[in-house]
Amino acid sequence: MDVTKSNFQTVLEALDDELENASFVSIDTEFTGLNSTEGRSNKLSSLDTPSERYKKVLNSSPQFIIIQFGLSIFRFDNSISKYVNKTYNFYIFPNTSTLPGLPDTKFLSQASSLGFLASQGFDFNKLIKEGIPYLNLVNEEKLRVILEKKSQSLHLHSDASSSQLSEIPADQKRFLNNITSRVETFLQNEENEEKRNAVLELHCNTIQNELIFSHVKSRYPNLLFESSKKTCNGCTVIVKKTGIQKSKTEPSETDSYVAEMQKVEDNVGFSRIIRKITDSGKLVVGHNMLLDLCHILGQFCAPLPEDYDDFKGMVNTFFPRFIDTKVMATTKPFRDLLQNSALDRLLNSLLAAPFRNIEVIPATGFPSYTDNFKNHEAGYDAFITGRCFVAMANYLEDISSSQSKTAAVHESLLVTPFYQKIFMMMVPDIPYMTISGPDLEPSREHVFHVTFPSEWKLQDIFHLFSVHGTVRVDWTGDTSAFVTLHRKENSHFVLSAMAESKLPVGCSVISYQAYLNRKSQIATLSAEVPDLSSRKRLSSPVQCNTSDVPSPKKTREDVKNMKLNKEQFVVSANWD
Amino acid sequence: MDVTKSNFQTVLEALDDELENASFVSIDTEFTGLNSTEGRSNKLSSLDTPSERYKKVLNSSPQFIIIQFGLSIFRFDNSISKYVNKTYNFYIFPNTSTLPGLPDTKFLSQASSLGFLASQGFDFNKLIKEGIPYLNLVNEEKLRVILEKKSQSLHLHSDASSSQLSEIPADQKRFLNNITSRVETFLQNEENEEKRNAVLELHCNTIQNELIFSHVKSRYPNLLFESSKKTCNGCTVIVKKTGIQKSKTEPSETDSYVAEMQKVEDNVGFSRIIRKITDSGKLVVGHNMLLDLCHILGQFCAPLPEDYDDFKGMVNTFFPRFIDTKVMATTKPFRDLLQNSALDRLLNSLLAAPFRNIEVIPATGFPSYTDNFKNHEAGYDAFITGRCFVAMANYLEDISSSQSKTAAVHESLLVTPFYQKIFMMMVPDIPYMTISGPDLEPSREHVFHVTFPSEWKLQDIFHLFSVHGTVRVDWTGDTSAFVTLHRKENSHFVLSAMAESKLPVGCSVISYQAYLNRKSQIATLSAEVPDLSSRKRLSSPVQCNTSDVPSPKKTREDVKNMKLNKEQFVVSANWD
Repeated sequence: MDVTKSNFQTVLEALDDELENASFVSIDTEFTGLNSTEGRSNKLSSLDTPSERYKKVLNSSPQFIIIQFGLSIFRFDNSISKYVNKTYNFYIFPNTSTLPGLPDTKFLSQASSLGFLASQGFDFNKLIKEGIPYLNLVNEEKLRVILEKKSQSLHLHSDASSSQLSEIPADQKRFLNNITSRVETFLQNEENEEKRNAVLELHCNTIQNELIFSHVKSRYPNLLFESSKKTCNGCTVIVKKTGIQKSKTEPSETDSYVAEMQKVEDNVGFSRIIRKITDSGKLVVGHNMLLDLCHILGQFCAPLPEDYDDFKGMVNTFFPRFIDTKVMATTKPFRDLLQNSALDRLLNSLLAAPFRNIEVIPATGFPSYTDNFKNHEAGYDAFITGRCFVAMANYLEDISSSQSKTAAVHESLLVTPFYQKIFMMMVPDIPYMTISGPDLEPSREHVFHVTFPSEWKLQDIFHLFSVHGTVRVDWTGDTSAFVTLHRKENSHFVLSAMAESKLPVGCSVISYQAYLNRKSQIATLSAEVPDLSSRKRLSSPVQCNTSDVPSPKKTREDVKNMKLNKEQFVVSANWD
Repeated sequence: MDVTKSNFQTVLEALDDELENASFVSIDTEFTGLNSTEGRSNKLSSLDTPSERYKKVLNSSPQFIIIQFGLSIFRFDNSISKYVNKTYNFYIFPNTSTLPGLPDTKFLSQASSLGFLASQGFDFNKLIKEGIPYLNLVNEEKLRVILEKKSQSLHLHSDASSSQLSEIPADQKRFLNNITSRVETFLQNEENEEKRNAVLELHCNTIQNELIFSHVKSRYPNLLFESSKKTCNGCTVIVKKTGIQKSKTEPSETDSYVAEMQKVEDNVGFSRIIRKITDSGKLVVGHNMLLDLCHILGQFCAPLPEDYDDFKGMVNTFFPRFIDTKVMATTKPFRDLLQNSALDRLLNSLLAAPFRNIEVIPATGFPSYTDNFKNHEAGYDAFITGRCFVAMANYLEDISSSQSKTAAVHESLLVTPFYQKIFMMMVPDIPYMTISGPDLEPSREHVFHVTFPSEWKLQDIFHLFSVHGTVRVDWTGDTSAFVTLHRKENSHFVLSAMAESKLPVGCSVISYQAYLNRKSQIATLSAEVPDLSSRKRLSSPVQCNTSDVPSPKKTREDVKNMKLNKEQFVVSANWD
């Protein structure tokens, strides 16, 4: 079911019950772009540590936004021993009005990503006209503060006498007379025609803006005067009637406060869905979730922290129980049974033997997604992610030697080892981030860091290591690369052999550990010159020491009071 | 007439004749966003100098893009003594493919701007699916170089023996066999079914990518192997047949070169329209053109220069004769006759007395734009800009005392004073940038720079200057503002009066000139610490000294060889 502004409130109100009854939910998102490929330091490497990978994501994708969110709710029906499904496909777009307190979001798009989505039938007109707005905690708090101030000043102003009015410059008197007459006409028309949403826009320059507030506003206590954002064209003052004024009595402080706080709730919009998912405590299933989680947290919860361990804490707070089906699909036994773990191909494989065919019943009023239909629509992808999870969990039950097998596989103990792990693309020896504890720390004694002249090609590196067998090369620049021996047993001979034979001019080979130490030294030096370190963030040092156990779960209070990197804004919103 | 990918080639081919016969053209553009309001230093001020204003535009809007371009061609038909019109409305979107050499453009959008366009009926689906691509000179040159290299290496590779093949790692042999078999199948299917546009995508990691090129490609001289951009998902090698291979003979070097260069032309796309407009030498009319010109130049010509005088040179090169109707509308005699110079309101005023009704005839096959129809569609706005120009030029002819009046008003000598002037919003004493020579340098002796405690309000500043009459206040921060006296004759008393009376604590008043000198000193100090100056660019000093006459027109060669600020890429493309 597509969800836009028009049916959002209905869906939102039904969601508490839906989630209460859910067995698990699966999610997927679509973004306006994937990666900023500029800057070599942000390129993914097969030797990235989890902390490095997180920093690369942080540096390359925060300006892209989620424009579609799929939420697929699976409920195990004991009477038929099958999962019943409701899938929602939310269109999400930042607030497009320019009212004070609301961010006028500027976001990045990647032409290829939008082109791809358009080719898959994504409706961008629907997105921009009907997309549901959102606010993260920081922007919600800003709006709340502004509206509270406004609500207070409304009452202060009505108390103040008009004796302290500023002098009207001679050349502005005609302007003010004109404005007053337009406001009178607006007030008259408004009452006659009952156009309750009508607004009057007064375009003016900065000084005229001040004059409207000091000389015109005070005469019309039943009208709301709002100063819109300043643009190239000067300022705009928006005049309107509020619903409260309909009663022809002065709004009480409480009424006006309630109205303003409702405005906050309305603009928090889609973020409330995420808060409900968190509050439900239900298992959340996704596929290849790193970008999804980063974008969901940053866009709907709070700016992402710089520190990887803080990120783990934040994930544990908002997604206390999740499974990444790509981690499952690339782990034994599935790794040996599946050719490809890309979502659409994964589903195809799971529909054939040795996997059992899984029937998922669409709930009443929800259309059935035919297989291979609507690939890359967030709702559809969320749905098939859930199906893949059920299929793989079923298989684990099927092959287990346990006596008590369950069809309600979301409760299976066999899936618990996959909790709180995020797939890490392209890193064979650390295939996932461990969010609930310390990350894997594989030995990299068979990895060497090589520097060489810029004219070197792959062949030259193969040649340099030829006596040690075949190698994998991961370029880190035009004149450097990591070299990984296929035959680990040769690791101990490399450096001594290199020392004996004469290395070519301009070439050096050091161990992975020596490379880490060198980077760490540079990082320490940079940290001593704070300014340098902030500008060098993109090439931050390799942090391989993951032995510090991260706080596995931050309390919600921790996150609220966390000093956030983007805006240094202390979040203290209360949304419990 | 809407122009998209599907009819672009036809329109392009007809355009030389259209422009040859044109009397003048008018243009308009729609952007994905208007301004980055972050950063106080980028806010427009009524005391901006032209150079400061240019820098503010440069700092705040380069990441937004033009997505619609209106070109309205007016031809004066002597037989009916009326203008005949053809209006084109181009949808423009960056290349969405990920082929090597083509930029995968990342661009910024402002939610409010897209929301506004959507509310006006802008079709974003059409834009993304059918928008015409473009390349500026820098990107065109990059593509040309890459395709030339490819064209050369194609022949080098076919000469090279396969004796120097790199060793195939044991664990990759199965992968390579699999790839070879898929390529064989592709080749077979392709020939049977004549699907000429079919491509085969081979997903792989970095080392497999190298292996495909070294071991598979050489066996299939009739297939094109292209390495697509690397993504999170690894690499993709795209395999396809070229048209040339249909003949079953080896393509000659010349044939292949021609095909590659045609690919460049196709991708230069919309930029060729701008080049044709430049080459036509025809008068170009726009309305409030600063953002239009900056975006057109940056997006379709070459990155904008840092230096304002270089910008003037660039405008003169690509738009050697233009008129900004907003400059006309805000200059006498129109200033006194028109209430508002916003385009839609301007048209309304010009349709009534004392202006003569102008009939513009749509050319055969071109629909007539009804008045007030499609506001904010670039084509419509370009058309009414042209109409406004004709109406105002007609009026100048009507009121002139000259004997020889002309109806072909684009030739009127009375409009020549408006050539090469760009409207400057909100600056009363410098209402336009003079692109063809030195800018206006009005006296600002009646302007003062005031600093004060942060708790000060407008009233406090009014009070400070109360003995000198009314003033205009332009805030430059929370604790500083420019104060402009309405009564200029009081200018000389301000500083001495302030010196005699005791200024409030934390308050200082200096002349505008002293303020400029102070900023200039800071700039000099910053320049001596290059690192500091580069980071402080947003708050660059006021440059009021416009007495250096800018080179009024750079040759096209100058622009080509200009060191461009964005990428430090020397442009040397040859597109004459």
